[in-house]
Amino acid sequence: MQYSDLINKLIQKETRAAARLITLVENDINAAEQVINSIYKYTGNAYILGITGAPGTGKSTFISTLIKNFLEKGKKIGIICVDPTSPITGGALLGDRIRMKQYFSLDNVFIRSMANRGQLGGLARATEDAIKILDVYGCDLIIVETVGVGQSEVDIFKSAHTVIVLLVPGLGDAIQAIKAGIMEITDIFVINKMDLGGADKKVAEIIQMLELKMNYKYESQENSEIYAKIEQWTPEIVKVNSITGENFNILLDMINKHEKFLKNTGIISNYLKNRIKSETMQILKHKLTKKVEDLLYSNKNIENYIDKVMEKSLDPYSMANLIIEMLGIEKKRDF
Amino acid sequence: MQYSDLINKLIQKETRAAARLITLVENDINAAEQVINSIYKYTGNAYILGITGAPGTGKSTFISTLIKNFLEKGKKIGIICVDPTSPITGGALLGDRIRMKQYFSLDNVFIRSMANRGQLGGLARATEDAIKILDVYGCDLIIVETVGVGQSEVDIFKSAHTVIVLLVPGLGDAIQAIKAGIMEITDIFVINKMDLGGADKKVAEIIQMLELKMNYKYESQENSEIYAKIEQWTPEIVKVNSITGENFNILLDMINKHEKFLKNTGIISNYLKNRIKSETMQILKHKLTKKVEDLLYSNKNIENYIDKVMEKSLDPYSMANLIIEMLGIEKKRDF
Repeated sequence: MQYSDLINKLIQKETRAAARLITLVENDINAAEQVINSIYKYTGNAYILGITGAPGTGKSTFISTLIKNFLEKGKKIGIICVDPTSPITGGALLGDRIRMKQYFSLDNVFIRSMANRGQLGGLARATEDAIKILDVYGCDLIIVETVGVGQSEVDIFKSAHTVIVLLVPGLGDAIQAIKAGIMEITDIFVINKMDLGGADKKVAEIIQMLELKMNYKYESQENSEIYAKIEQWTPEIVKVNSITGENFNILLDMINKHEKFLKNTGIISNYLKNRIKSETMQILKHKLTKKVEDLLYSNKNIENYIDKVMEKSLDPYSMANLIIEMLGIEKKRDF
Repeated sequence: MQYSDLINKLIQKETRAAARLITLVENDINAAEQVINSIYKYTGNAYILGITGAPGTGKSTFISTLIKNFLEKGKKIGIICVDPTSPITGGALLGDRIRMKQYFSLDNVFIRSMANRGQLGGLARATEDAIKILDVYGCDLIIVETVGVGQSEVDIFKSAHTVIVLLVPGLGDAIQAIKAGIMEITDIFVINKMDLGGADKKVAEIIQMLELKMNYKYESQENSEIYAKIEQWTPEIVKVNSITGENFNILLDMINKHEKFLKNTGIISNYLKNRIKSETMQILKHKLTKKVEDLLYSNKNIENYIDKVMEKSLDPYSMANLIIEMLGIEKKRDF
């Protein structure tokens, strides 16, 4: 095995091995495949917390205070900052990472940022793999943080046990949360900056939205699995002050309550099943897309098809069907 | 043919047929396949304009004034408002649509909004198909508008001949544009609200960013096709006032200049090739994902695999490989 030395060091909890393996799985799906294949049996111990919030909600300070609270309980913590909006520069959430640097020197905190270097499926897949590496590295708690921009979090948060959405008093965020489809996967709403006016109004807004949501949540069959978790869990709402640390004890109790809920109801096992399905789906999408792209950009017959589409004697759907035939997938194969 | 009546009416430029066909292709990929198969030979006449801008850049007013200018030139216009951030409610850009309603009664303007009802590939695919329907409906110009949120526009704008990015004087938007990867596909930068202070500073910022971009634009091989267009075209920059209509004549000249550039250099033919490839890719992704999802959520063997992954005797990558084998795609098939 090519990476066995690094993997052994990871199992021995060496920080540099964890960092290097994450870089590997991020950049190279073939390396990822080998690494995950070797370490998968050691995973499954970490609790995964998804945190999102629009810019300006004070995410960095909130997460710093949260880390402080968990450190006091003796936890080892991994933080993955995911930025799905940054396909080119790769400098994902660098500012946040710098702001959280105060914890960098501690042995019990590992911070890593990941950017979108290609398609969304790739980022969700790489994040999944990074979570596994930090799990084997011995993190009790893994925080996956993303900026609040849309559908991409829904994919990224599929592996989170508890999803926290950060809001601040004032107009707009509540609407944004519902627009992005995050609302449906939120377990705990945190109103940060509770000292600002309007925190209670924000709580009322969330309650109203939760009621509204009940009306359309089963509209889409496709999304029914996303809702499976929320169906029996009524999202908690808490106001906090990340600077003074006020109410973080309540928040920690809520996270604990949600963890117990997942375990006691047996939902955690359904949840793990769904996570495996969604993860396999991400890997498959990545592999199939790669296969099709290779074909599309290298095969000689494809050029002929494209010429025909340009002459309008073929349309793109028919061309897609011809390619599916080339890939060898039988049309009505009975699985 | 199931939809031949509707398609005949579309060819006869009936508005209701266009609206109904767009609903069809949006909701049902099988219907889309049949419809596009029948109408593809009539497409290729419309000029496609992609417009994006962050909230607050005055997109609706800008587009309204742009429509007014094109109407004066006797053009028939289609507008597709795409909202990739709204997976649940489906109420994409409803506000914008209402604000643009002043043009609704005109025979020469067709406005339609589309929301993200599933994965991104689906939305880009549906938008492509809606463009074709409006093309056959006889639109000379089709405006595809999206909110400025990220990678999704890059997919949606692959069919646009000219891409316009809207900015306003003030801090932040320029950075946002570069973050989202939009910069690389922009042909014309429009500084809206030129009457506000700082418009010239914004122009300077864009010039600076364009220079910066030159340095990393070939970093990624994957993106080289996106850059193919910009390589020979230096993006134009114009300041406008959408309320008074100031400088829209300059903007229209720029769009015209860009159209001529695409035609005279022959880039329009390369561009069409790339568009066909990317469109076929979208359709293939959609079809393959559907195939794999069906398999993942219905096949009995899959449940066994998932149990094995839960017991950690199998990992998700190995499970993905087993599914690829089930799909009948041979591993090292020589195409």
